[in-house]
Amino acid sequence: MAAWARAVRGLLLDVSGVLYDSGGDGGVPIAGSVEAVRRIKASGLKLRFCTNETQATREKFVKKLQGMGFDISVAEVTAPAPAACRILKERGLRPHLLVHNDLVPEFAEIDKANPNCVVIGDAAENFTYANLNEAFRVLIGMEKPVLISLGRGRYYKETDGLKLDVGAYMKALEYACDVQAEVVGKPAKAFFESALAEMGVPPQEAIMIGDDIVNDVGGAQRCGMRALQVRTGKYRPCDENHPHVKPDAYVNNLAEAVDILLQQL
Amino acid sequence: MAAWARAVRGLLLDVSGVLYDSGGDGGVPIAGSVEAVRRIKASGLKLRFCTNETQATREKFVKKLQGMGFDISVAEVTAPAPAACRILKERGLRPHLLVHNDLVPEFAEIDKANPNCVVIGDAAENFTYANLNEAFRVLIGMEKPVLISLGRGRYYKETDGLKLDVGAYMKALEYACDVQAEVVGKPAKAFFESALAEMGVPPQEAIMIGDDIVNDVGGAQRCGMRALQVRTGKYRPCDENHPHVKPDAYVNNLAEAVDILLQQL
Repeated sequence: MAAWARAVRGLLLDVSGVLYDSGGDGGVPIAGSVEAVRRIKASGLKLRFCTNETQATREKFVKKLQGMGFDISVAEVTAPAPAACRILKERGLRPHLLVHNDLVPEFAEIDKANPNCVVIGDAAENFTYANLNEAFRVLIGMEKPVLISLGRGRYYKETDGLKLDVGAYMKALEYACDVQAEVVGKPAKAFFESALAEMGVPPQEAIMIGDDIVNDVGGAQRCGMRALQVRTGKYRPCDENHPHVKPDAYVNNLAEAVDILLQQL
Repeated sequence: MAAWARAVRGLLLDVSGVLYDSGGDGGVPIAGSVEAVRRIKASGLKLRFCTNETQATREKFVKKLQGMGFDISVAEVTAPAPAACRILKERGLRPHLLVHNDLVPEFAEIDKANPNCVVIGDAAENFTYANLNEAFRVLIGMEKPVLISLGRGRYYKETDGLKLDVGAYMKALEYACDVQAEVVGKPAKAFFESALAEMGVPPQEAIMIGDDIVNDVGGAQRCGMRALQVRTGKYRPCDENHPHVKPDAYVNNLAEAVDILLQQL
């Protein structure tokens, strides 16, 4: 009997690296994951997808996953851009956006004239020298620079190799402007808490499954959840010697985690 | 009588922002600086140019300055790339270079096959998404990543505006790979010390003149030198409230500093 699998009522699943490996071609499902999501839903366990994905609107992102065979809808996804929009509205902030073109529609209703903050996401090909300089100039020109970052990931894996994630570019702007970014998305506590609230499950009855030792596992554990690291996606063997974060368990992949969880029900 | 100007035998001059403002067009001399360099040389004071410039070989850099009317030769310039080459040779390091195309010839005699470190300079337009990912992959693939950075400047000013400097990109790679870069160039103590040695003047008889409050002024003071900040180049009024660094004096520009220094002789 796996102790970590007892008394679970809800699952938060990271998406990239757990459900599929992303890539220029759109990505490929990880073996067993399509079926694993179906089995979770059939079991009666609560389920929510908790992603730092900011390369596309949730609509487009979900469509891609549906195209790979996943049973997923927009209403089941917790993502940083909508969380950032709530913050921008609450505080009357007008962003200069350094994000992926495909994410821009998430900010359609936000006033962007005469910016008084910078929002940075995983802009991928938009991380050009010119765009980075422009975001920097907007920030350094403010009396009190406000930088909001959609995640603080260090890197992720695509089918053609590892790529620098938004956190690296966030650090570049933080250093250049001598500011500290406000992070929206994993591992921010507020982000996990809103995903739990949307699922209606308290942290001690929920489990996070992700491939990122710090942002998925460490973040979820700091909220009082259990957390598994899968050995897929960006997982690297040296993660198992991480100085600060120790998952409740390792599993080879999502399918194995679901096998064990469903045996406990 | 300006106390800071007493008993000076040697000057270290920063170049960009002190002698000239750089830009896409090659740059323009700062008013009075061409004449100020001539007056220093005529006075018998020792002089050395101490730059973090890594967008060109020293040969090309000096040619540009000569074209603006400056009396300067390659042998008078202390710059990071030759200092880095000494370190690479001493330690048997083979670099993957993320530098400006025009700097590459400085590394002509260095073995670059099968890299076991990354050297980053102010690569400017070479700071593309693809090149940053490539440097990152080389680093993260090493058992013990070695990152050597030619300076740690936050930003600099060109005629068309402020630009992110090498330090920002260094921070991005440091964060992504969880390493600390070794900095060659200002404000590294060893770099100032080699410039002083080349000039043959002890720190307490030398003065640094620069536009960068941290890398020029703070770095030189930590070596026991006096240091002035000019109000040209990247100088910003808020520098005068810097929490940690206080120059021995402010001057409006190099010409004013030289006026005062020559009165003391």
